[in-house]
Amino acid sequence: MSKNSPGNYFEDFRIGQVIRHATPRTVTSGDVALYTGLFGGRFAVQSSDAFAKAIGYPRAPIDDLLVFHIVFGKTVPDVSLNAVANLGYAGCYFRSPVYPGDTLSALSEVIGLKENSSRKTGIVYVRTTGYKQDGTPVLEYVRWVMVRKRDEAAAAAGDQVPRLPTALEPNVLGEACPPIKAANYDFAMAGALYKFGDYQVGEKIDHVVGVTVEEAEHQIATRLYQNTARIHFDLFSAKQGRFGRRLIYGGHVISLARALSFNGFANAFHVAAINGGRHVAPLFAGGTVYAWSEVLAKSDLPSRSDVGALRLRTVATCDKPCADFPFKTGEDYDPAVLLDLDYWVLMIR
Amino acid sequence: MSKNSPGNYFEDFRIGQVIRHATPRTVTSGDVALYTGLFGGRFAVQSSDAFAKAIGYPRAPIDDLLVFHIVFGKTVPDVSLNAVANLGYAGCYFRSPVYPGDTLSALSEVIGLKENSSRKTGIVYVRTTGYKQDGTPVLEYVRWVMVRKRDEAAAAAGDQVPRLPTALEPNVLGEACPPIKAANYDFAMAGALYKFGDYQVGEKIDHVVGVTVEEAEHQIATRLYQNTARIHFDLFSAKQGRFGRRLIYGGHVISLARALSFNGFANAFHVAAINGGRHVAPLFAGGTVYAWSEVLAKSDLPSRSDVGALRLRTVATCDKPCADFPFKTGEDYDPAVLLDLDYWVLMIR
Amino acid sequence: MSKNSPGNYFEDFRIGQVIRHATPRTVTSGDVALYTGLFGGRFAVQSSDAFAKAIGYPRAPIDDLLVFHIVFGKTVPDVSLNAVANLGYAGCYFRSPVYPGDTLSALSEVIGLKENSSRKTGIVYVRTTGYKQDGTPVLEYVRWVMVRKRDEAAAAAGDQVPRLPTALEPNVLGEACPPIKAANYDFAMAGALYKFGDYQVGEKIDHVVGVTVEEAEHQIATRLYQNTARIHFDLFSAKQGRFGRRLIYGGHVISLARALSFNGFANAFHVAAINGGRHVAPLFAGGTVYAWSEVLAKSDLPSRSDVGALRLRTVATCDKPCADFPFKTGEDYDPAVLLDLDYWVLMIR
Repeated sequence: MSKNSPGNYFEDFRIGQVIRHATPRTVTSGDVALYTGLFGGRFAVQSSDAFAKAIGYPRAPIDDLLVFHIVFGKTVPDVSLNAVANLGYAGCYFRSPVYPGDTLSALSEVIGLKENSSRKTGIVYVRTTGYKQDGTPVLEYVRWVMVRKRDEAAAAAGDQVPRLPTALEPNVLGEACPPIKAANYDFAMAGALYKFGDYQVGEKIDHVVGVTVEEAEHQIATRLYQNTARIHFDLFSAKQGRFGRRLIYGGHVISLARALSFNGFANAFHVAAINGGRHVAPLFAGGTVYAWSEVLAKSDLPSRSDVGALRLRTVATCDKPCADFPFKTGEDYDPAVLLDLDYWVLMIR
Repeated sequence: MSKNSPGNYFEDFRIGQVIRHATPRTVTSGDVALYTGLFGGRFAVQSSDAFAKAIGYPRAPIDDLLVFHIVFGKTVPDVSLNAVANLGYAGCYFRSPVYPGDTLSALSEVIGLKENSSRKTGIVYVRTTGYKQDGTPVLEYVRWVMVRKRDEAAAAAGDQVPRLPTALEPNVLGEACPPIKAANYDFAMAGALYKFGDYQVGEKIDHVVGVTVEEAEHQIATRLYQNTARIHFDLFSAKQGRFGRRLIYGGHVISLARALSFNGFANAFHVAAINGGRHVAPLFAGGTVYAWSEVLAKSDLPSRSDVGALRLRTVATCDKPCADFPFKTGEDYDPAVLLDLDYWVLMIR
Repeated sequence: MSKNSPGNYFEDFRIGQVIRHATPRTVTSGDVALYTGLFGGRFAVQSSDAFAKAIGYPRAPIDDLLVFHIVFGKTVPDVSLNAVANLGYAGCYFRSPVYPGDTLSALSEVIGLKENSSRKTGIVYVRTTGYKQDGTPVLEYVRWVMVRKRDEAAAAAGDQVPRLPTALEPNVLGEACPPIKAANYDFAMAGALYKFGDYQVGEKIDHVVGVTVEEAEHQIATRLYQNTARIHFDLFSAKQGRFGRRLIYGGHVISLARALSFNGFANAFHVAAINGGRHVAPLFAGGTVYAWSEVLAKSDLPSRSDVGALRLRTVATCDKPCADFPFKTGEDYDPAVLLDLDYWVLMIR
């Protein structure tokens, strides 16, 4: 038997199975620089040690989504190497800030399995936790993917669909946010004067500017996360597939949308949780990504007066500016929509 | 009113107005690596901690132009988001070396305003200063840009054109250069044996090699500086504009020309000042940039015997090698010229 | 005479000549991040400080091939600026681990010269050593290149071809590997359970996945190494040359193949030596690189029980998956083959 890894097929998973993923990864200021070069983030807390220290962090934390992507990347060789489709996320929340020098690793538990009626594929649900070198959990999320079977005749190892939360509860939203010295928060330096109290539920904001994605950019980003999904890198194979070209990692769109959302949410300095996300359409190189957001809800954090939470829907589109907030017509998404992301951000009160 | 930022229009500026720009930015060895990957600089002082320490720096300083680009980038959302054209620089000089770990921020004062006769646009002059976290100024320059009016009928807030220096005086050229232990300067390691005394006023040097720019490269660079000028990133919009494609940040050409100038000025280890610069023509991806330089003047530095200053004109071209020093025919620039940069470098005596 | 450097021509070299190369280069965690983004390496020792410390390194070492490329890059302006072809490597071995913060420099000795019968070119053999700031050698190799003569009539400075080793002896393979605490080596975290004892001489492994190379990627990589070979960067000149486009640095293919080889050799955590390598065909942007490997030999390391050495042939191809191990038909390489690399890796026993 060859020593290269074929990845797991649907019938290889078992309910309750725990997978410790390779490869541990020390995150450094080098990763921060490259992530800045790729997405152009301008949130002051992640950009400036001086700003972060003034408000109560020991130094600038690693961007939340960079942490997500690195943890996610580790799960790919074990969970989704034979995936047909990445179906969804739920219950994602950040549990501890990550700083340069921390080493991240990941562990997944299989919490659901459901064979499709075709018997060619099945849905695998995993709860993944990202850890630091000392065992501190930094991130937790559930993901479900449709995975091929190696052998159609193989018996499915279970038939169980987990109940998943629609949205994270406010009591977990502050876990990765230290107490903030709000008096030291310099709004001019942060880029806008709007605080938690200035946002209204139902308010929609266009993020205005678009950004075009190049093949080299998404490949560099996705490799930075050590994500090995072939479809992002292998043009020769992709030419024979259903898209005929390389597919950009869905997380790339999330990071672009987050960076664009600065223009409207400059003080939303921390992504606390991702309630759910749908990659409505694939993105290919050459496409220009725009985004807009809506405030879905607002919440206090239990026993905290420094910050509040905004629940946002951020919609990203391809080649369509968002001044009129393109979204759905009836049940159907506007054909330009790439991403429909539902998440919580923290903002100074 | 939407919370996204529309940027300032001509009539929003006031003489004497002071703008503290977002976002503070900690510069790290990650930025240095990416800048090296993008431009390939080979000046030993910026490349090697060991070399820099031997001659009197505490460690390798951040490349002067990287400092410039980061400071410049901060001013874009406030000064030039609605610019029609970037008209010029003057009086730019470096005031303190910057090291990994330093946090940069920027402040601009409006020092001139001049409405154009069309009443559709006006020229804004700002003096920008870059600072470290402790308030040390690291860089100062004047820039003027043509900015749109929101409303043609609006009254201009002033009519004042500042007097600007043609060139920086030698007394400020050493501010960002510590005393150099010239005896420890290893010329073989630095890449050439030529010292300050070996250069003659009027001497022209072709930098020989060309470098082709890709879309991903200039986008990554410009985002690294958190420069938000849409024209560099947004192909969908650009297609409808006057160029039909993304325009490369003018500073990208400056950095390329500086890196190319190593081949002829290997010991010009510090850009001390930029007297003025003109972006003669736009650069687009796929173009190959060449450069040549002329020594315009030489100067001692008051009470310093370690280093001297060369005033250089560096001309960058697109798709035209520079063996015959393409420049002007009469008043008109050669159509291949991209950049005409007048600046001071320091060199070991 | 102009101060730009024309590089050396064949008749400029002398047997025994020693060249100290510019530019010293401090390697940082920024370089590591960018190298990860460009090649996506997943070997745990280089990826994780925590993993590296557990098994006996002070922290994660710099990837061996990144060290090679940086040292190699320094030699280009002096050795191969006027090269027609890069003919081969031999006797390359790593002598000390390199860590972020170390400064690398390089020195070459001319050990062979052989004029070609055309009298237009000649072959130059150099032995290059890479050093740290404290003089510790980190890498040594012999390289030979065909270099143009400036003047056909010039007398050759020598006619001497050195004897070169076919393969490195086992006694030097452990020099850059500290004693490994094998009991602390976490195979699940490293990505595979296979140890030294599990591999058989003659075993072939397909690395399965391909990766497509973009112009921006190889340019950024090659500049990161401060390699100045014009053919990699200058499209305008390349259009007039024999390929009509930019040629990708051969070392880029080596790094891609090494990263791909993780899928089959996840525990081959250290490249100890390169016996020889042949760039069989040039690679251009847009090509998708695949690879496979064969175990050529196995060896103990004298007086070490922690690690063993595998001698591998890794073959990289362009646009041709390697399930059937494409290599040679008789004397001729399969037309898809790019690289035939013979090297030693260390693996936990």
